[in-house]
Amino acid sequence: MEIDNVLGNLVRAVQILEDCEEFSDLIPEVRVNLVMALPDAKSEKDVAAIPGRITRVFRKPVAVGQPALGGSSHMARVVLQVMKHDPSMRAAMNIKYDEEIIRILREEGLNPVVIDRKEEPPEIKMQEGKTSGWLVEKASGEAGGLPGAICDKGDFGKEPLILLIGRDAVEVAQRATKIAKRYGGK
Amino acid sequence: MEIDNVLGNLVRAVQILEDCEEFSDLIPEVRVNLVMALPDAKSEKDVAAIPGRITRVFRKPVAVGQPALGGSSHMARVVLQVMKHDPSMRAAMNIKYDEEIIRILREEGLNPVVIDRKEEPPEIKMQEGKTSGWLVEKASGEAGGLPGAICDKGDFGKEPLILLIGRDAVEVAQRATKIAKRYGGK
Amino acid sequence: MEIDNVLGNLVRAVQILEDCEEFSDLIPEVRVNLVMALPDAKSEKDVAAIPGRITRVFRKPVAVGQPALGGSSHMARVVLQVMKHDPSMRAAMNIKYDEEIIRILREEGLNPVVIDRKEEPPEIKMQEGKTSGWLVEKASGEAGGLPGAICDKGDFGKEPLILLIGRDAVEVAQRATKIAKRYGGK
Amino acid sequence: MEIDNVLGNLVRAVQILEDCEEFSDLIPEVRVNLVMALPDAKSEKDVAAIPGRITRVFRKPVAVGQPALGGSSHMARVVLQVMKHDPSMRAAMNIKYDEEIIRILREEGLNPVVIDRKEEPPEIKMQEGKTSGWLVEKASGEAGGLPGAICDKGDFGKEPLILLIGRDAVEVAQRATKIAKRYGGK
Repeated sequence: MEIDNVLGNLVRAVQILEDCEEFSDLIPEVRVNLVMALPDAKSEKDVAAIPGRITRVFRKPVAVGQPALGGSSHMARVVLQVMKHDPSMRAAMNIKYDEEIIRILREEGLNPVVIDRKEEPPEIKMQEGKTSGWLVEKASGEAGGLPGAICDKGDFGKEPLILLIGRDAVEVAQRATKIAKRYGGK
Repeated sequence: MEIDNVLGNLVRAVQILEDCEEFSDLIPEVRVNLVMALPDAKSEKDVAAIPGRITRVFRKPVAVGQPALGGSSHMARVVLQVMKHDPSMRAAMNIKYDEEIIRILREEGLNPVVIDRKEEPPEIKMQEGKTSGWLVEKASGEAGGLPGAICDKGDFGKEPLILLIGRDAVEVAQRATKIAKRYGGK
Repeated sequence: MEIDNVLGNLVRAVQILEDCEEFSDLIPEVRVNLVMALPDAKSEKDVAAIPGRITRVFRKPVAVGQPALGGSSHMARVVLQVMKHDPSMRAAMNIKYDEEIIRILREEGLNPVVIDRKEEPPEIKMQEGKTSGWLVEKASGEAGGLPGAICDKGDFGKEPLILLIGRDAVEVAQRATKIAKRYGGK
Repeated sequence: MEIDNVLGNLVRAVQILEDCEEFSDLIPEVRVNLVMALPDAKSEKDVAAIPGRITRVFRKPVAVGQPALGGSSHMARVVLQVMKHDPSMRAAMNIKYDEEIIRILREEGLNPVVIDRKEEPPEIKMQEGKTSGWLVEKASGEAGGLPGAICDKGDFGKEPLILLIGRDAVEVAQRATKIAKRYGGK
């Protein structure tokens, strides 16, 4: 079943992240969410996530709760918007924003695009949940297609974050641990 | 991928068990293991399980660790032997042995077969890991085919257990919670 | 031993929070940290915390990792500064910033003080880790003594938060669950 | 408070065990319970334990659930009986039964006493919960005082176990990890 495929892919992705101590250096204050959508996802309920996010206990990454549908909202909306451009790109994860990480993403050929929310139209900013879609559209417009990473500079009260995009959760996790091993920690 | 299908099925099965408080009444002293094999499983490494087993915190069932290949041995051997009879029966779980549970299994049409290890030939008993296969063969012989439940009366130093057998982990979990809700607790 | 007293108090506090589903409505994006200092705490190493913070799995609050010394930094610095005013006030916890919560805090007699980081001198803002102490000093100055809650309006890239202050972790947890039950959720 | 002292001592003991990979070799099929009683414990409700026991995820020991009063019964009864002999001995833990472990216990000066349940009077065996007390009395009788370890050879359906006894949970955990490091694994 498709749902089993998605949940199992998330299980393997979480294992990859938990086994990588250096990944704890990429975890932002808001913690990590890793999501993967069903093939024909239409709403947030069709996107699986780690409901308690991925936090760390000292240097050990720890996923809290088993993967489940509906366990995220911001990241789910990011993926739903991404799939409008390319339905085969079904996974996303947020990590810490850092210039050094953006440099590594560029070297890895992931084409990171930096977005400043100052350019977000006020009518979008006012509506709860609209920013996720705007970030994807803005980044795709600037990159001339879907980029591999959207670097959101944040806002008042909003932590800056980098959103990694990929085909499935395992691909995104593998990229994240590769980046983590190159990144020296802050 | 087949591995994702199996891990995801185990995730859904665990969710079913954790959401059922009454299931905690079926947890034996040795705790529960729930396993599911890859379609063409040949060895214990091809069988996924809950590596820290399913325990309980007061009345709440709690699975410890994410599903992973190679996380069990006794239950993995049970499933490998079962698959020699019917390759579509790829999941198994152990629960507490209790006459009342056997009665419910019978009413549910699961055809439980009770096995007394006194009949186990000494040359099998002596070999580490051979008992699992013998239990399946003995039970299938008595039932004239694979039963839905093998009731192992235990031995000196070995807790008696009931082994539920099914197509996938979700099917086994659904049966277990149905039984748990009928069973009054001990 | 003093360390056992502190760790055990945190265990009881965590139990109070995990048993209160409504508390999940107070968890901010950065998740909750709950800290308690040793009686003669001098540095962050003398302050115990929940190393993986308190997150939520759907509506269930979940503390990640056992209480341990050195498991926090921002909240540890808050408590160390608080203890300079009153050594008997050894615990603190951050929750979500919300006007409705501030209103409830006022009604509960906890004397919440709202601080705007626009007033933070630039030489303090520049130094990593100095903001925590400034918040406590600013709030105590405005309240004419230690308040029961410091409401930090946040900053660019920084989520606004409310910091609850109390004698021990259990006292802070009891206040938080009382507030959570009055608060309707967002 | 006394309860905080006990819970905090258990937290530190659990940390010692979880940090010792070799300890996973001492975990029996029924998993480990570690208990510590309040100073004037009268009933099982006055004894704190790890409610989901200590299991392992592959080679990593993992305590499930936070320490809490009333989280065990067999081990709680063991400690209550021990305290009738010496109220300062308030902690106990069960580990795997193995001749090699008994040899190490002897070398460590812990005076292990081996008890055969064949000698248990039938009227005690029949009563649920009476065996725990009998084991302590029998072992103390044979040792001429409380031993540091009671080696229970098990019974039909009952796994053989070794019960370690000590002043507090940290002392028992330290002994267990010392033994685990000497023990080569089975």
